[in-house]
Amino acid sequence: MFSYGNNIRLSIFGQSHSPAIGVTIDGLPAGFPINFDELRSFMQRRMPGQGAHTTKRKEADEPEFISGLVDGITCGSPLTAIIKNTDVRSSDYDQLRDIPRPSHADYTSYVKYGAARDVRGGGSFSGRLTAALCVAGGICLQLLRQKGITIGAGITQIGDVLANVPYPAYPNEKMLAAIEDARQDGDSLGGIIECVAQGVPAGIGSPMFGGMENRLSTVMFAIPAVKGIEFGNGFGAADIRGSENNDSFYIDGDTVKTKTNNHGGILGGITSGMPIVLRVALKPTPSISKEQQSISLSHLENGSAVSFPTGCSETAEQFPSKIKNVPLAITGRHDPCIVPRAVPCVEAAAAIAIYDAMLEGKNIL
Amino acid sequence: MFSYGNNIRLSIFGQSHSPAIGVTIDGLPAGFPINFDELRSFMQRRMPGQGAHTTKRKEADEPEFISGLVDGITCGSPLTAIIKNTDVRSSDYDQLRDIPRPSHADYTSYVKYGAARDVRGGGSFSGRLTAALCVAGGICLQLLRQKGITIGAGITQIGDVLANVPYPAYPNEKMLAAIEDARQDGDSLGGIIECVAQGVPAGIGSPMFGGMENRLSTVMFAIPAVKGIEFGNGFGAADIRGSENNDSFYIDGDTVKTKTNNHGGILGGITSGMPIVLRVALKPTPSISKEQQSISLSHLENGSAVSFPTGCSETAEQFPSKIKNVPLAITGRHDPCIVPRAVPCVEAAAAIAIYDAMLEGKNIL
Amino acid sequence: MFSYGNNIRLSIFGQSHSPAIGVTIDGLPAGFPINFDELRSFMQRRMPGQGAHTTKRKEADEPEFISGLVDGITCGSPLTAIIKNTDVRSSDYDQLRDIPRPSHADYTSYVKYGAARDVRGGGSFSGRLTAALCVAGGICLQLLRQKGITIGAGITQIGDVLANVPYPAYPNEKMLAAIEDARQDGDSLGGIIECVAQGVPAGIGSPMFGGMENRLSTVMFAIPAVKGIEFGNGFGAADIRGSENNDSFYIDGDTVKTKTNNHGGILGGITSGMPIVLRVALKPTPSISKEQQSISLSHLENGSAVSFPTGCSETAEQFPSKIKNVPLAITGRHDPCIVPRAVPCVEAAAAIAIYDAMLEGKNIL
Amino acid sequence: MFSYGNNIRLSIFGQSHSPAIGVTIDGLPAGFPINFDELRSFMQRRMPGQGAHTTKRKEADEPEFISGLVDGITCGSPLTAIIKNTDVRSSDYDQLRDIPRPSHADYTSYVKYGAARDVRGGGSFSGRLTAALCVAGGICLQLLRQKGITIGAGITQIGDVLANVPYPAYPNEKMLAAIEDARQDGDSLGGIIECVAQGVPAGIGSPMFGGMENRLSTVMFAIPAVKGIEFGNGFGAADIRGSENNDSFYIDGDTVKTKTNNHGGILGGITSGMPIVLRVALKPTPSISKEQQSISLSHLENGSAVSFPTGCSETAEQFPSKIKNVPLAITGRHDPCIVPRAVPCVEAAAAIAIYDAMLEGKNIL
Repeated sequence: MFSYGNNIRLSIFGQSHSPAIGVTIDGLPAGFPINFDELRSFMQRRMPGQGAHTTKRKEADEPEFISGLVDGITCGSPLTAIIKNTDVRSSDYDQLRDIPRPSHADYTSYVKYGAARDVRGGGSFSGRLTAALCVAGGICLQLLRQKGITIGAGITQIGDVLANVPYPAYPNEKMLAAIEDARQDGDSLGGIIECVAQGVPAGIGSPMFGGMENRLSTVMFAIPAVKGIEFGNGFGAADIRGSENNDSFYIDGDTVKTKTNNHGGILGGITSGMPIVLRVALKPTPSISKEQQSISLSHLENGSAVSFPTGCSETAEQFPSKIKNVPLAITGRHDPCIVPRAVPCVEAAAAIAIYDAMLEGKNIL
Repeated sequence: MFSYGNNIRLSIFGQSHSPAIGVTIDGLPAGFPINFDELRSFMQRRMPGQGAHTTKRKEADEPEFISGLVDGITCGSPLTAIIKNTDVRSSDYDQLRDIPRPSHADYTSYVKYGAARDVRGGGSFSGRLTAALCVAGGICLQLLRQKGITIGAGITQIGDVLANVPYPAYPNEKMLAAIEDARQDGDSLGGIIECVAQGVPAGIGSPMFGGMENRLSTVMFAIPAVKGIEFGNGFGAADIRGSENNDSFYIDGDTVKTKTNNHGGILGGITSGMPIVLRVALKPTPSISKEQQSISLSHLENGSAVSFPTGCSETAEQFPSKIKNVPLAITGRHDPCIVPRAVPCVEAAAAIAIYDAMLEGKNIL
Repeated sequence: MFSYGNNIRLSIFGQSHSPAIGVTIDGLPAGFPINFDELRSFMQRRMPGQGAHTTKRKEADEPEFISGLVDGITCGSPLTAIIKNTDVRSSDYDQLRDIPRPSHADYTSYVKYGAARDVRGGGSFSGRLTAALCVAGGICLQLLRQKGITIGAGITQIGDVLANVPYPAYPNEKMLAAIEDARQDGDSLGGIIECVAQGVPAGIGSPMFGGMENRLSTVMFAIPAVKGIEFGNGFGAADIRGSENNDSFYIDGDTVKTKTNNHGGILGGITSGMPIVLRVALKPTPSISKEQQSISLSHLENGSAVSFPTGCSETAEQFPSKIKNVPLAITGRHDPCIVPRAVPCVEAAAAIAIYDAMLEGKNIL
Repeated sequence: MFSYGNNIRLSIFGQSHSPAIGVTIDGLPAGFPINFDELRSFMQRRMPGQGAHTTKRKEADEPEFISGLVDGITCGSPLTAIIKNTDVRSSDYDQLRDIPRPSHADYTSYVKYGAARDVRGGGSFSGRLTAALCVAGGICLQLLRQKGITIGAGITQIGDVLANVPYPAYPNEKMLAAIEDARQDGDSLGGIIECVAQGVPAGIGSPMFGGMENRLSTVMFAIPAVKGIEFGNGFGAADIRGSENNDSFYIDGDTVKTKTNNHGGILGGITSGMPIVLRVALKPTPSISKEQQSISLSHLENGSAVSFPTGCSETAEQFPSKIKNVPLAITGRHDPCIVPRAVPCVEAAAAIAIYDAMLEGKNIL
């Protein structure tokens, strides 16, 4: 399911190596002038090819708006932006059609979609699709700022290196060193990103399945590599007592606030007016050049359903029928750590979930 | 939003003190004989009034099926079960109409729904609604078992006490002592529940917003008190390298397996055939008898929008106009720790999300 | 699919002979005092047993509200009303388990749900479920009236007898005579109902799949027997030229109006501010006592999948294996014409679709 | 709302004069080889510029597939096709920004989206968007044919000229003459299209809001100009008795059939296995060159919200403040009758609704 939203309706499409990826957003208000420079800067933050620690694939990631605008202003019709895939080297991935990468979607997508799935560059499971998420999220961020809401995320941990300042947008020296270490070992690192949304008014979201935690989770887990999410004190709340975890109310001027924010701005699924605080855990990039153990899908199928991919015939011959398990060393371009590039994706995901929820309003006569 | 599901459509209703709570499930297959004894046993596990550590409210929680069955067998029409609310003492909650409990939904529901919201017993934000979730989940569990899928959850932590055996369904002695300590202090504890679904075939779920993590999160966060969720290695994956976190594939007989299960049975949002493993963090029950600091909503509104609840007139008089912040000591019946009772709720939530996803099938021509 | 709505979420449940039928509406505003007397009067209009021309089944159709209200005022939680099925004579329908009534859902429900379907009284395909639709619609009508919107429907045709006044709520003498004629012949009649919604502001609805015609059709076709719908000039627009069918705009005071209303208040799926006008065609009740030709499903299945219903064993014995087609004479209680009772159902359906669309609002920044 | 579908998720985007229009279909099976020649032929049938009776705008309408395919075969990822808008003459429409065309969406879109709406070529309300519908529908038609299902539509009426053969794909001589007459008078004609789907198995669709009539209506009313729909006997069923309208069942070999098909292949919202038969009424094209009466929106707004469009300043000056109503003569390129071009659109709409419903399957354990 590549669509999201109750009030805006987001629809993402594209594969890593299809002619383009893109996104459609239906339900935006007419009359909003998109700040394209700002959107470009935002997109830039998730761009590959910006340093030694990121993939070498270089693309402008320039969204081309093919509907929904008149002279750069939203007109109320569904807004569609596409980003062309230009720097594509599909041959890198031929081997993976047969031998699924451990902890990647190669195997599960094979089971779900069969041999016809697009294995090139990870197909629709590629982190590349977060560029489309960032286009949508970047626009939602602009719409939210107009209402006084700002969203910012920072890296709190990469591997076992913690941040030394709150909410850093970029990895610190120690983090960079750890990433470089991993890269040189043909290995990879994950991390934790914290995201804060300030200015969201109280009363947004709804109980049960439409709560803000439910909504934010739904969008956050669309970012590949996210394997955990927590709000406010999160898992830390399990360790302490109610009297420690509860946030006392007080009134500051005309505003109801809480003295602490262990609830992360959400109570009963509904915003309290305090900052929304969440953290997501990202697993280390599964694509590593270190040798790993995998299997041969073509063997599994007795060669019937899965045709041997171009350039892999020798590989196939190497595996007599009793040897099912095969070693795998991945050679394509891969980030040793996608956490830095995921920071704007987390902001985008938060903006989408929050903007969609904001359109619902209160249930008061 | 009290509804969930793409293929089954679940709709939950009721408040803690309305005549009844209940659930409708549309989309179940016709011809399934519900095992009512088993459902009753399952429901029993979340029942209140079972020990010193739980609330004293006693109710049979006996679901009454008012549609969807013919002679106890599903007929394909929407199945509706209601559970009557019988042991209701609404006067306990009068004070809370004016003074919201810290870290409870009293304040946010007031902002969302206004003074007309049902404050009695927490209204729709009450843990009582998980009884309806358990009816639906209990039926899904039976449907899943027929397909060879079993789901079990256990308590891994209460407060700072860890489990000493894997997946205990009930708190151990140390946990019970910690709960009793908290109770005597007028305080409360949270905890962590781990849930494992075995036998889910590979290929279930879909990428992006329809992934299994997204779906499971959406239902899990409908359980009040859940503030975090992680799959497989979860937040632990952030600490280690890809070569440690990746799960090697191998073939066991005819089945593709992984040597470790750090991915928690889900890759790219799609099941891998390995057990689905997730953990949820539950915050300590916010309703504690220890004195806390809160505010007076009626004061906030200048008494206009919020009428003073019966029996609270003295309270109102106590607060002259310049004193906005008020102390609160809650006297109702409340669990010092809802973690034990939440175990079947987590199983129910998992069953609902997994059963709904199973109905989607593969996308192969 | 028994649920409807983007902004309110309606969920209907029940079978003709289950313990109860009912409806849940999620998304209503808190603070609305339902006028129960008015709702009762509205429900009364679709009640059976009111005259010679209707079924003899007598039931109070009194909705019992089990959630969503505090002291008769909506509280923002899902509102659930149930109507108990009391006057149930299931034995009437035993024969139909085997021999599907022509032009009824007996056969298609058998294919969709198998032998486990609820055949008693037509199960969920019974017109009885429109009582639940009327509860929901009756409440929406009250909410709409508060915004200055009124909805009224009338009978324009029964059989070949046309109305002699505009929008009559009840059949005229000639219509009653035609119905009585049909009843005496063991036959039935259909008709046409016209519905007008006044006061709906311009700008409601959205293009393409979310247009008002699309939404209104979706709810109208949930009324059993509806086989056609048209808006404004409808099928009549096919006969004339654009210059005749186009409705000239003019300004009346501050209001934009059209001189004629061939567009039925909807242009491009969006309301124009002119009255919404629609007509639905209802087929004659398929359950007639006149002998008809049908088939034996148990024969079709060689008696394996379909067990012979109680009391039909003689029937089964009558049909040797080469005779597959069987005559059928229905003996249960059935309206010779449901058109008069369908009038409030059409109003209810219109109210649901319009109220849900109203909550969406405009797409202006 | 530009999206549709429970099992496939269709999302249409674009305006008449945006860089492109297009469609995304999520949920298609992987492994389907699209027949592009056939799709091109299908698209050709709705193409403009094919005769004296159609608009002079000439465009290839060649869909460009930017995602969802690998070597022309579906890969399971969302399929997106875009069609570039090349032959665009926006200046034709400047006048319409101020003076809404009678019975067109110019006024209602202004109310819904404000002055920022895209008025060029009718924006998203243009019949041009049916090209995107036809891409999606053309693919669904191919998928359905693989399952033995064929869908065909024909013109049964244009203006008051009836078809002289069943299901003609093209207008007959008399129809062409009537269209030419209308064109010469600066006027337009509507008509009726009948559509038949053969081979749809019994048991597709679901009761209440998910019935086949509900689903087919939802898609059909997305075709601009459709103002009515009926199934089987439709409005004709109102005139006759149940004994005449009921369709007797019989068994033909192994197949259950009905002797007549007044029910149009749908009973209780579920397919019976008989051909699905529906008719839609299309109103005459509202854009006619004959002078009509309309209003000046800029006047209405006192010139504040609506800026005068380029090239219309003279027009604005012509209208002193007390004259609100203005004559309008439309000069752009417009079909005098879109019925012939709508035939493939009706087939496409039917294919989309039926294919989506087919994916749901039966509700049998």
